[in-house]
Amino acid sequence: MMPATLYLVPNTLDLGLTTAASADLREVLPLGVIQIAARLQYWVAENAKATRAFLKRVDAVVPLAQPLQAVHIVELPRPVKGAAAVADTAPALHALLAPAANGHDIGLISDAGLPAVADPGAALVWAAHAAGLPVLPLPGPSSLLLALAASGLHGQSFAFVGYLPVDATARSARIRELEVLSRRAGQTQLMIETPYRNAALLGALVTTLDASTRLSVSCGLTVPQGWTRSDTVAAWRTRPATMPADVPAVFSLLAR
Amino acid sequence: MMPATLYLVPNTLDLGLTTAASADLREVLPLGVIQIAARLQYWVAENAKATRAFLKRVDAVVPLAQPLQAVHIVELPRPVKGAAAVADTAPALHALLAPAANGHDIGLISDAGLPAVADPGAALVWAAHAAGLPVLPLPGPSSLLLALAASGLHGQSFAFVGYLPVDATARSARIRELEVLSRRAGQTQLMIETPYRNAALLGALVTTLDASTRLSVSCGLTVPQGWTRSDTVAAWRTRPATMPADVPAVFSLLAR
Repeated sequence: MMPATLYLVPNTLDLGLTTAASADLREVLPLGVIQIAARLQYWVAENAKATRAFLKRVDAVVPLAQPLQAVHIVELPRPVKGAAAVADTAPALHALLAPAANGHDIGLISDAGLPAVADPGAALVWAAHAAGLPVLPLPGPSSLLLALAASGLHGQSFAFVGYLPVDATARSARIRELEVLSRRAGQTQLMIETPYRNAALLGALVTTLDASTRLSVSCGLTVPQGWTRSDTVAAWRTRPATMPADVPAVFSLLAR
Repeated sequence: MMPATLYLVPNTLDLGLTTAASADLREVLPLGVIQIAARLQYWVAENAKATRAFLKRVDAVVPLAQPLQAVHIVELPRPVKGAAAVADTAPALHALLAPAANGHDIGLISDAGLPAVADPGAALVWAAHAAGLPVLPLPGPSSLLLALAASGLHGQSFAFVGYLPVDATARSARIRELEVLSRRAGQTQLMIETPYRNAALLGALVTTLDASTRLSVSCGLTVPQGWTRSDTVAAWRTRPATMPADVPAVFSLLAR
């Protein structure tokens, strides 16, 4: 019997936007990926409801191989804080891979972008390798790399550092730390924030960073009205920007 | 007049593989991206010949808006070592953006994956922002993020560090440095190598890293016969792998 495969299926980047349900998947996903998604019957998902919405959009382009009601969707265990938690959830993860023992391919999908990148799922992928399952990542939009490409900052060396602290003092300290790191290593630093804190993060970056540091913001990547602005911090101070509170953004900095 | 846009156009990841010319672009690129590529008349490219090959594949899916002979393709200035070179090439970069002054959209494309990510082009993107041009990155395959997703390593914090030194002693020192950095920051470290040195890099990683460090290799992403293996270094030592010398690979490590 051919071993079953764990497919890493990319989702769109328009989660929660009102235009999402009507936007054609072919704008942002390869047809080959949509075809694979249409035939998978077993899914592990960050969120089952978002996955059903995704599969309805798939069905509008390539009819599902079985009715949506017959598609099995189980959710990933809720993330537990701290890396040690990965080991604790191993038995639960193996259960999620059980359909593969019966020869069924499995799709792993998150709410937006690539699964297991800035999103849950990495522990399941590790468990799949440990179980000897082939893991096949399918190409699709990644807000981090689209933002990096659009930033015009250094793309030969970069780091994604996730979320910054919410507390203002700790956040400023972390921003200064990242600026030093960026200058020393010549490394672009990328970060994200919950949309309703976009404005607070941008304000903190513009206030805290050196005037000569380059700062880029990409907002609403791949969606209409999306934009990227890249400028020195000095220029951001002269011409402030208004950040939407309901659209995901990626922030990048490069210190000189 | 609407401002012209600089589109960042993703390329496939099958550069140089014999199956490339015949593989359907829709397997790896969104139709929306292929449609935009088909109508662009002005291109800035890492390599003009590779761009013409790409446009022939576009034409097979969506007919080009003008004959290939009428498409203008100019190459990026050859990269000069050292970040200071960016400033030196600024006038040349502005010349590349000249069609935008006449209202023509421009496509930026590299030989593989997203332009300006682990590839030339970032300086042009920065120049476009400085000139007030909208910059629109289009979704497509990125070998770095596909490898990260498939690795099962930590995807919430990661760094891409480019190429390692070729000299064996310097390479081992750099590998140890990256392992320390990974352990301290809980950060997955990603690197690439020229394909004919794939085996040498894997050998150095397996020899130099701690037995408990996790090591992942993705080879031939998005192409048939592509594979990802993720394991502890101890397991890589027990079951060595044979690396092809002509297929691109991405290497990732996470120290515990």
